[in-house]
Amino acid sequence: MEVRDCLVSAPGKAILHGEHAVVHGKVALAVSLNLRTYLQLKARSDGKVCINLPNIDTFVCWELSELKQLTSFLSDKKEEMQRLDAELVKRLREFIGVTNGNLDSSASAILAFLYIYLSLFGSGDMPSLTVSVWSELPTGAGLGSSAAYSVCLAAAFLCATANIPTPLKEWEQTGRWCQEDLELINSWAFQGEKIIHGNPSGVDNAVGTWGGMLRFLAGKIIPLSRVPLLRILLTNTKVPRSTKVLVARVKDKINKLPSIMIPVLDSVDAISCTCEKVLTEMTCEPITGDHYNILEELIDINQHHLNVIGVGHPSLDTLCQVTAARGLHSKLTGAGGGGCGITLLRPETDSTTVQGTMKDLRDCGYDCWETSIGGPGCRKEDSRRVRPLWRIWISITVL
Amino acid sequence: MEVRDCLVSAPGKAILHGEHAVVHGKVALAVSLNLRTYLQLKARSDGKVCINLPNIDTFVCWELSELKQLTSFLSDKKEEMQRLDAELVKRLREFIGVTNGNLDSSASAILAFLYIYLSLFGSGDMPSLTVSVWSELPTGAGLGSSAAYSVCLAAAFLCATANIPTPLKEWEQTGRWCQEDLELINSWAFQGEKIIHGNPSGVDNAVGTWGGMLRFLAGKIIPLSRVPLLRILLTNTKVPRSTKVLVARVKDKINKLPSIMIPVLDSVDAISCTCEKVLTEMTCEPITGDHYNILEELIDINQHHLNVIGVGHPSLDTLCQVTAARGLHSKLTGAGGGGCGITLLRPETDSTTVQGTMKDLRDCGYDCWETSIGGPGCRKEDSRRVRPLWRIWISITVL
Repeated sequence: MEVRDCLVSAPGKAILHGEHAVVHGKVALAVSLNLRTYLQLKARSDGKVCINLPNIDTFVCWELSELKQLTSFLSDKKEEMQRLDAELVKRLREFIGVTNGNLDSSASAILAFLYIYLSLFGSGDMPSLTVSVWSELPTGAGLGSSAAYSVCLAAAFLCATANIPTPLKEWEQTGRWCQEDLELINSWAFQGEKIIHGNPSGVDNAVGTWGGMLRFLAGKIIPLSRVPLLRILLTNTKVPRSTKVLVARVKDKINKLPSIMIPVLDSVDAISCTCEKVLTEMTCEPITGDHYNILEELIDINQHHLNVIGVGHPSLDTLCQVTAARGLHSKLTGAGGGGCGITLLRPETDSTTVQGTMKDLRDCGYDCWETSIGGPGCRKEDSRRVRPLWRIWISITVL
Repeated sequence: MEVRDCLVSAPGKAILHGEHAVVHGKVALAVSLNLRTYLQLKARSDGKVCINLPNIDTFVCWELSELKQLTSFLSDKKEEMQRLDAELVKRLREFIGVTNGNLDSSASAILAFLYIYLSLFGSGDMPSLTVSVWSELPTGAGLGSSAAYSVCLAAAFLCATANIPTPLKEWEQTGRWCQEDLELINSWAFQGEKIIHGNPSGVDNAVGTWGGMLRFLAGKIIPLSRVPLLRILLTNTKVPRSTKVLVARVKDKINKLPSIMIPVLDSVDAISCTCEKVLTEMTCEPITGDHYNILEELIDINQHHLNVIGVGHPSLDTLCQVTAARGLHSKLTGAGGGGCGITLLRPETDSTTVQGTMKDLRDCGYDCWETSIGGPGCRKEDSRRVRPLWRIWISITVL
């Protein structure tokens, strides 16, 4: 079987409001982050299957004949998409030699690749191909880089197997899929996420698939139909933190001071709901400064609340102070305790302010990107764009 | 009638928790601030009544004969202590020539003095005396300096008229009054506060009278029987602010974002209640680092909440940062938007840390005092202490 070359991309994810509160049954708003992961699928004719992941220094090739031996472990129950095929995962771990303990990012990326490849192609004629993935997203920063990868894998392989159509028209630069196709992409991406993370919420792959904004409440994910694109700065303080430790810290604080903390979670919940309302209004009526005033106010309030529940960090205080000095409003995004923060930019925020702020933040030792939230989910890219994108990749791999 | 010389003092007041929330029906904790106001009453034999208020540059003498003419306006209904004698106030304003508009601190202090003097002595033999008042409290900083003044006036005049006993024993340095006497002092001090402030809550004079800590809820003031003495730094950022404007700002914010703000007020309420519980525990069981850990945590959380309800200020952020750099925890006290802040010191906080922090704060342009909260209310001081206290006064008046 020969596959057609294709190029797909998927966005990262940021939590706009409701991180941590979501663990305690409150609403969270997850938004797509327009730092994207790109996946190029290229047919080969030498009977090899290769994967190139320059961001995590991973370059592997297998003979098709090796992979074919693994197909005997494929379950017949194709309809059981909700559950991971544990037997296949076990055999794949043996195959790549990581039977014990936690997987590093390289091993888990390979495992997810092989799992989806074999599940989708294993029962038929397996194609020889190279998958190359490169990303604008930092890995391990809570920005959904693994989900964007899984979404790209799912979309590319589903296209290649013709399980979903190739949406790109000759004259279009990018193409998207219909709702049903997106659901299929999302469910396969979720499988990839399960391999990588064990017990993911499903939010990251949903954002990577649908883009825009999602409302997440008590395990239910509701994509919001229309949201405005918001300019932001994304800053990575590069302070390492453990999400697990931070979630435990919040739980301890709630247990210790319930009468003080539970109202704070209620207030965070109201912030998410108010934000959703404002963003919806912004798509129905002319956007005004008042909309941005409220968005900024919600950011400031939530940042205080996140400090109250114990997930602040001096590096995040510095981020807020540095941006406040330029009239900009920031909050942490995700787990906190370091990690990343977002800074809202107004449509009229000029490039002097943006560049100056980015310089200030880099002077603090942080990484900083000007990007946007609320943009499109996974999509097929025009292959003619491969060339400039490869250049990015080459610059990444050479550096 | 000749009066005995006496020296009395009363403490200032700080809000430990619940400022602003109290306006919206939540608990506030008011504590005595051991920056005290001292009043010396000295008999004269020249038929003059004099008042010296060096802190506010006020030095006035009247002939007893002038004051006697005012007694004809005294109401007979002595039992009506709850209401101010409006007719007397009106005549006193005419007497000192301030019939129109708001009173400055000098005029209102004189008015309170004359009102209490005439009310207590006017129906009998009026004594010739000099009242001298000096204070460690900055005026107009929301620290209850006017209430401490009114409490001193009431205590000294009630002693002089023998309405309350002179509690000081020969061998004691200071002396306090019984509950009934304190209630009488407080009710006359409240009259003074009404003259100075129009519509005071009664909290400031209650703290000045009883000292320690008071629970204030829906207009009801409950003195707490036992609280520990806590070391603090009191810092005056000297940023001017209007309590009225700040109260209105909070109200607007609640009206604009009720679902977000009302839980924050509930959380502040719980902070006050938790703090009261911890302080009560500290008087019943051995004080540990854990007690202080919680007190510090409550201070940090409330400072965030006060920012959320809109009464923060960059000068207060700086105060918090400067003290946090020394491992100390601060919050604004009172109206916010500038004004004063308190910093909790632990019993073991060493003088290097304290002195260094005070220097850092003074380098920011702030005034800073090392003092304590939760100390005694109004008391009679040993007159032998007059001499060193006068030295303070002289240094104030000379500077």
